[in-house]
Amino acid sequence: MTPATHDPRPVGVFDSGLGGLTAVRELFRQLPNESVVYFGDTARLPYGNKSRETVTRFSVEIASFLVRQNVKCLVVACNTASSHALDALRARFDVPVVGVIEPSARAAVAVSPHGRIGVIGTLATVGSNAFAHAIAALAPGVSVIQRACPLFVPLVEEGWLEHAVTRQVAEEYLAELRAADLESLILGCTHYPLLVPMLARLMGPGVTLIDSGAEAARATTQLLAERGQLAGGGEPHHRFFVSDEPRRRSFARVAESFLSRPLPHVTVVDQTDLPWFMRAPRVPGAEEDS
Amino acid sequence: MTPATHDPRPVGVFDSGLGGLTAVRELFRQLPNESVVYFGDTARLPYGNKSRETVTRFSVEIASFLVRQNVKCLVVACNTASSHALDALRARFDVPVVGVIEPSARAAVAVSPHGRIGVIGTLATVGSNAFAHAIAALAPGVSVIQRACPLFVPLVEEGWLEHAVTRQVAEEYLAELRAADLESLILGCTHYPLLVPMLARLMGPGVTLIDSGAEAARATTQLLAERGQLAGGGEPHHRFFVSDEPRRRSFARVAESFLSRPLPHVTVVDQTDLPWFMRAPRVPGAEEDS
Repeated sequence: MTPATHDPRPVGVFDSGLGGLTAVRELFRQLPNESVVYFGDTARLPYGNKSRETVTRFSVEIASFLVRQNVKCLVVACNTASSHALDALRARFDVPVVGVIEPSARAAVAVSPHGRIGVIGTLATVGSNAFAHAIAALAPGVSVIQRACPLFVPLVEEGWLEHAVTRQVAEEYLAELRAADLESLILGCTHYPLLVPMLARLMGPGVTLIDSGAEAARATTQLLAERGQLAGGGEPHHRFFVSDEPRRRSFARVAESFLSRPLPHVTVVDQTDLPWFMRAPRVPGAEEDS
Repeated sequence: MTPATHDPRPVGVFDSGLGGLTAVRELFRQLPNESVVYFGDTARLPYGNKSRETVTRFSVEIASFLVRQNVKCLVVACNTASSHALDALRARFDVPVVGVIEPSARAAVAVSPHGRIGVIGTLATVGSNAFAHAIAALAPGVSVIQRACPLFVPLVEEGWLEHAVTRQVAEEYLAELRAADLESLILGCTHYPLLVPMLARLMGPGVTLIDSGAEAARATTQLLAERGQLAGGGEPHHRFFVSDEPRRRSFARVAESFLSRPLPHVTVVDQTDLPWFMRAPRVPGAEEDS
C-alpha cells in the first residue's frame, strides 16, 4: 500500500455485542475526525464461553463484512476475539488489525515496575493465556495472576453497576488479586469499564486499572499516525451495524452507557437463509478478502 | 401419516444449549424405550435476550437438522424458542411440534384453583407473554404475575446453585411473587430446575413449582401414545449434537448436572464456510422440509 498523508476511509471496529462501544468512545475522544464502522454480533453474543474455532469463524465473517465497507484498519475490540482470532485475521486480510491484548499488556508493563500484574476477563480470554503470553514477551519473568469473572457481563447487562450483589460477586472473584499487592489490573473485557468505580474501590488506589478498549484506541491512533493514514479534516460519518434487532429500550440504555452519548441510527444486517455476512453491500474500492 | 402401533424413529429435542437436557432426563424417565436426538445450539446461546426474528430463524435451522435425522416429533425444550418460534415451526414442518408453554400452562391451571399463577423466565420469554396468553386461553380471567430473571442462567452456568449471591438475586427477583400468595410458579427456563431447592425454600410449601421441561416430556408421552407412535421394545439409541465444541471440563459438569447421568458421545456439527445446518447428513426416509 502506498503511504498517504491522509486517508478518509473509516476505521472498522467489532465486538461480540455492544461492549466494544467503550473502545469507540475512546476512539471518538482521541480521533474526533475519524469515521467509524462498528459491528456488534448481537445475534450470537456472548463469545466469552465459546471455543477458539467458533470465535475465529465468527470473527472472520465479521471482518469480511467490515473489509467490504472499505475500512482502512480493523480494531478487534472484543477481548475474546483478540485472544483467539488475531492470527487468523492477520493471515486473511491485508488491512492492519489492532487487538486489545498487546496494547493492554504494554500499558500494564509500563506502570508495573515490579511486574505485579493482574488480568480479569471471560473464561475464554483467561483460558487462552493471551495476556500472560503478551506480557511475558514484553517483560520476561513477570508472572501474571489471572481470574475469569463470567458473571460480570450479565451483571453489567442487568444494569447492576453498584448493586450489593455485584459487590459481593466482585469480592469473591477478586479475593486472590486483592491479596497479591498488584501494581496494575488489566480489565480484559469491554464490559468491565462500566464497573470501574466499584473495581477501583475494591482494588485500592495503588492499582492502576488498564482499560483494554482505551488501549486499543490508543494503538489505533499510533498506527494511523505512523502510516500517514489519519483522516485529516472533514466531518466524520459513523455507521453502526448489529446482527440482531436490538430490544429497543434496553439496547438504547446499554449502548448509551457504553458510548457515553446517544447512539445514532443502527442498521440490522439482513438475516435470511443466506449467511448474512455474504449479503453485505460491497463498497467500491474495498479490498477483496483473500 | 398412517397411524402405526409402534414407531422406532427418534424423538428430536432442541434447546439453545444444554439446559434442554433437563427435559431429556424426564423423557428418559417417562419413556425409557424412546431414542432421542438432541441438538444444543452452544455456538449461539443464549436465546433469552434475542429478538423473535433471530430466535425463529435459529429454531427453523435446528428443526431442519433434526427432521433430516428422521425424527417422529420435535420437542422444543427451550422456553424462549417455544415462546417465539412454535407457529413458524408448525407451519414449516409436518412432524408434530411439542413446546413447553401450553403443557406448563395446563399443569399450572390444574393446581391453581384460585388462579394465582406466577411465571419466571428469560427477558424474551417474559416479554413475549406466551405463558400469560396460554393460561388466559385455558382459564379466562386469571391474571398471571411474571418476572424476568436474566441472572439465573449465568448463575447456574457458574455452578452457584446454593451460593449466597444466588439467594440474594433470587430474593430480589422473587419479591413481588413471594408477596402474591401464589398457588403455582412456572419455571419458564430449562436452567431453573437446578435452582429448585432454593426456589422451593423461598416460595414456601404452598406454591407448586412447575418444571416446564418435565411438562413438555409428559405432553410428548401423551402425543406419542395417542398417535400410536411409541417406540415399543428394543434398545434405544441416543445421539447428542452441539454447534460449538464444548469446553471439556465445564461441559461435562454442566451436562451431567442437567441430565443426572454421564453424557454419552457428543458430535460437534461441522462449522465451515457453508451454513452448518445445510451440511447435516440426510437420513434415508426422512421428511423433506417444505
